[in-house]
Amino acid sequence: MSSQLVQTIQAELDSLVLIDPHTHINPHAAASDTLADIMGYHYYTELAHSAGLPREQIEEPGISPKEKVGRLVEKLGDLDNTVQVSWLVEMSQKFFGFQDVAVTTENWEALYDTAAAKMAEPDWEQQVLKQSGLEKVFLTNDFDDPLTGFDTSLYVPCLRTDDLVFHFTKATTRERLEKATSSTVSDPASLRAAIGQLFEHFTKNGAKACAISIPPTFSPAAVSDSEIEPILASVLAGRELTPDEAAILSQFNFWTLATFCDEYKLPFDLMIGVNRAVYPAGVFQGQDLYDSRVSLIQYQELFNAFPQVTFPVSVLAQTSNQELVSYAWIFPNVVTNGHWWYSNIPPHIELDCRTRLSAVPQTKQVGYYSDMYKLEFALPKFAMYRRILAKVLANDFVIDRGWSEERAIALGKLNLRGNVETIFDV
Amino acid sequence: MSSQLVQTIQAELDSLVLIDPHTHINPHAAASDTLADIMGYHYYTELAHSAGLPREQIEEPGISPKEKVGRLVEKLGDLDNTVQVSWLVEMSQKFFGFQDVAVTTENWEALYDTAAAKMAEPDWEQQVLKQSGLEKVFLTNDFDDPLTGFDTSLYVPCLRTDDLVFHFTKATTRERLEKATSSTVSDPASLRAAIGQLFEHFTKNGAKACAISIPPTFSPAAVSDSEIEPILASVLAGRELTPDEAAILSQFNFWTLATFCDEYKLPFDLMIGVNRAVYPAGVFQGQDLYDSRVSLIQYQELFNAFPQVTFPVSVLAQTSNQELVSYAWIFPNVVTNGHWWYSNIPPHIELDCRTRLSAVPQTKQVGYYSDMYKLEFALPKFAMYRRILAKVLANDFVIDRGWSEERAIALGKLNLRGNVETIFDV
Amino acid sequence: MSSQLVQTIQAELDSLVLIDPHTHINPHAAASDTLADIMGYHYYTELAHSAGLPREQIEEPGISPKEKVGRLVEKLGDLDNTVQVSWLVEMSQKFFGFQDVAVTTENWEALYDTAAAKMAEPDWEQQVLKQSGLEKVFLTNDFDDPLTGFDTSLYVPCLRTDDLVFHFTKATTRERLEKATSSTVSDPASLRAAIGQLFEHFTKNGAKACAISIPPTFSPAAVSDSEIEPILASVLAGRELTPDEAAILSQFNFWTLATFCDEYKLPFDLMIGVNRAVYPAGVFQGQDLYDSRVSLIQYQELFNAFPQVTFPVSVLAQTSNQELVSYAWIFPNVVTNGHWWYSNIPPHIELDCRTRLSAVPQTKQVGYYSDMYKLEFALPKFAMYRRILAKVLANDFVIDRGWSEERAIALGKLNLRGNVETIFDV
Repeated sequence: MSSQLVQTIQAELDSLVLIDPHTHINPHAAASDTLADIMGYHYYTELAHSAGLPREQIEEPGISPKEKVGRLVEKLGDLDNTVQVSWLVEMSQKFFGFQDVAVTTENWEALYDTAAAKMAEPDWEQQVLKQSGLEKVFLTNDFDDPLTGFDTSLYVPCLRTDDLVFHFTKATTRERLEKATSSTVSDPASLRAAIGQLFEHFTKNGAKACAISIPPTFSPAAVSDSEIEPILASVLAGRELTPDEAAILSQFNFWTLATFCDEYKLPFDLMIGVNRAVYPAGVFQGQDLYDSRVSLIQYQELFNAFPQVTFPVSVLAQTSNQELVSYAWIFPNVVTNGHWWYSNIPPHIELDCRTRLSAVPQTKQVGYYSDMYKLEFALPKFAMYRRILAKVLANDFVIDRGWSEERAIALGKLNLRGNVETIFDV
Repeated sequence: MSSQLVQTIQAELDSLVLIDPHTHINPHAAASDTLADIMGYHYYTELAHSAGLPREQIEEPGISPKEKVGRLVEKLGDLDNTVQVSWLVEMSQKFFGFQDVAVTTENWEALYDTAAAKMAEPDWEQQVLKQSGLEKVFLTNDFDDPLTGFDTSLYVPCLRTDDLVFHFTKATTRERLEKATSSTVSDPASLRAAIGQLFEHFTKNGAKACAISIPPTFSPAAVSDSEIEPILASVLAGRELTPDEAAILSQFNFWTLATFCDEYKLPFDLMIGVNRAVYPAGVFQGQDLYDSRVSLIQYQELFNAFPQVTFPVSVLAQTSNQELVSYAWIFPNVVTNGHWWYSNIPPHIELDCRTRLSAVPQTKQVGYYSDMYKLEFALPKFAMYRRILAKVLANDFVIDRGWSEERAIALGKLNLRGNVETIFDV
Repeated sequence: MSSQLVQTIQAELDSLVLIDPHTHINPHAAASDTLADIMGYHYYTELAHSAGLPREQIEEPGISPKEKVGRLVEKLGDLDNTVQVSWLVEMSQKFFGFQDVAVTTENWEALYDTAAAKMAEPDWEQQVLKQSGLEKVFLTNDFDDPLTGFDTSLYVPCLRTDDLVFHFTKATTRERLEKATSSTVSDPASLRAAIGQLFEHFTKNGAKACAISIPPTFSPAAVSDSEIEPILASVLAGRELTPDEAAILSQFNFWTLATFCDEYKLPFDLMIGVNRAVYPAGVFQGQDLYDSRVSLIQYQELFNAFPQVTFPVSVLAQTSNQELVSYAWIFPNVVTNGHWWYSNIPPHIELDCRTRLSAVPQTKQVGYYSDMYKLEFALPKFAMYRRILAKVLANDFVIDRGWSEERAIALGKLNLRGNVETIFDV
């Protein structure tokens, strides 16, 4: 009965064509060429490394894609239990007709070859989009991305701003900014103007969000020109900043971004909580972790100062999710956004999804984004979320609250798709 | 089978007449006059505001109750998913024969009028108490409340002490204290004496608890007279205190309260974790949030210093609940108390309830309080808790541990009612 | 159906003979003599005290074991709901043929006498090991334990190092170290040499781990000889250290232990988060609590510095479990280890177990240890864990992921036993 109910709801959610509101897709190479593009995803390399495969073997220069996959497959048995490996198996089954329940040293070569043949078909990218039910895919573009050479109505630009806020002390960042804006940054006004130009460029090219990932120690705050002036002069003169000065510079640039989000009516995606390079000997993109001792109270000044800016917030630690639910329940401009990274596993998604659906206005929830680097990942990741969402809707709404199936399905569709349209104006 | 079991247990829990050990009821106007009294509850105004309704429209001076409800109803669709709106629908169904599954722009006026007619019946308050199965209702009285004009055996006084501890730097607080006690506060001794008089007054009038809500940064500590003397002199002379001085003054007054709880044998309800006015542009009572980085270790000195005072503790963040369970498991004087505010939603209640029932002596758990401002809320809020409790008793005790139904029901009754009697001596 | 599935899996898990990788067993008196050895376990004394039994009655000098049990039984009714009391009942049923569902003032004496008779049988210890399915039991030995007089292949030594790290300022600790190693500690080199001798002694006697429990405030760090030299000189001269100096001394000794774990290839069990003597008036071993504001980021330097040392990590607070899962997912040398103390109750175990099985390589998880003081506890504690594990395997793997029963059972066996063998090399 209950399992029939879950299936009915899930079938309706499965039929929905989606907009994926946060990915790391390269629009010039959105789909994979070989299985190495999929298994090179940091989830597999970092888990294989965690299970004992030396980084040197995974990242050995010059090895072929097939050799790389072969090495990773050796460790897949140890990772068999992880939900990440279940995505790999589901992708293989759905896209490549893979019949087994696990990718092993016995069967991987055939899979590799089948996949390579499929991926070589000229319309592979379109096939993946169609089979995955993807209508639009948000990108995460470097601030100096020219945004040319791809269809911005399919691959929606998004201004990624980590470098501007947290790496502005690096000369390369400043040079990239000056080059991208054909300007010279010499003082607060010219810095602000250069950042404004980025917003002009991005919104002219269809950008629908500004985004940043933030360490747990950061607290946004307004910084006056007179306060930033000597710090900026120092950094432009090539002097090393003290940690306090660097933090103020980060705050200045961050606040400037929020100001332009306001002016250009762009939502500002905040991805809160990551510590970078905690394990510097780890594989590429497999070095970051977090400190769950972070609070949204650090964003109080920001949320109050920009009532017209929508902040879709992602948190890394489950313990932060309750704060997120509560802040979205109180602040009109705070929206819950997906299930990010270390929280993107079924037991955490389930509880986070249940709490959000219980207490945050239904119009203020972006259910899920894939965070993918290659298009093939949307299918299994959204499938995982849809299964959890269907279960939550069945249990918490139809069974516990006596809702009709139709009403629960409508809530699910709003969560998966409708809110993406309204919140990001796509 | 299992659902039959849940129903059997729930039916037994539903039959229980309750004492509600924490509310904000005004005993001179306990029940509602119109639906505006119900929908004016901060849960609805803050959620409607969060979903986009401007505060100015919600709180416009001079609008009629009906106009106010009409404006809020416009936004109810966006909040349909929240458990708070489910309380509204359940209240409407149970008290006013409402037949629909949602309050909408189509049906709200009829509901408003039906409710107004019912609420105008002279015994409406008694009807609500009876239908809700409420025998006694704890209040939260200002420290200068005369406590006259109502039946203190039905509406049990409780001394609310936030102002004394956290707003004693305001002249109005000190004036209210002096007026209420016909005394002059000039030094630590006279301050202590004045506070003592409040306890005398409250306990003579049947008070059964002292209560306070506390920000996450506060740590109770004993303060000597010699330490507080110059600070008190400063504040009485109208000088502004430094943050450190203000904190010491808060600690002194808090410790004084605990001393009198000991002397007068009053439980001291601690409601730990709220940050006030995080969103100052929010609606009335919809501005407070929290920082989940708080620990009961901050209460170590207090719990050790007053072994004879019972501390029923409520926490705001789910992450604090495990600490609460552990501290109640170790400290004889720490008792778990209800599911407070942002934790008062089914997914959090369920886990918190399960952990408490697994590890805290069953006699040291106050299952639930309504925290209501108007009497009509007890029914749906306790109903929500009873449903969750019945499920937990069925799954964790009858099914997983092989308990008989009777034994599980007895545990539920102790949790819902028996412990309130013994812990608060009512 | 689903309940049949759970039973099938559980039956397979139940048939497994186990190695218990962390206990506090005294190998010279591993099993109990009377029920007082079982009910004297701090769980029962602290819970009875929490429910109102004065410490003086529980710990009155000179009372007989039977008198002690009689006093504790008076309070068992109040603790009936706790999982700890369910262990007592299960032990009584399985070992002593107890037929009732609760130990009461009516039936305890008969149980006491039956138990005493059973425990007096000469092979009682062997009976318990056999009935509990225990093949090996890890100990927690003081650093100056001679490790003689018992079978170290059954009772596997483990070097407990709390005293060396956190109580080295006490003269008794230093005297014990000097005596155990027949050496004089006069400077960093001789201190290091003495600690090295302990590793030599322990590994020669079959030790398979080094272990320590750590307060939430501690952060391991490398300390140079020149930095520690004056501090060590101070402490050896009997001068009191400042808190900062004491912390550096703790760091020096901790780091030295990690260095020797590396050299001697011993896993270093980290049990993170306990505050000692939070409630000093509590019963023996019932005084410790915690502050959940702790992060594994504090261990970043350690995990990076010792890539060849395996760190089986236990955390006290559930909120730390997600960090543990994430750190074990990234760091090859971090392993999840059991469900410790205040997290060792079914609702926490269930969520922690689900998250670990979803995201940590299956080879890097030590499912459970009993933490027992007396052998009889392994049976009900592991039974509790096996029931939860069977349910998680059934729901999350067989039902949600479509795994075969065999595959789920294999994962369970690896979690319960296989990984203990490989990780601790037994």
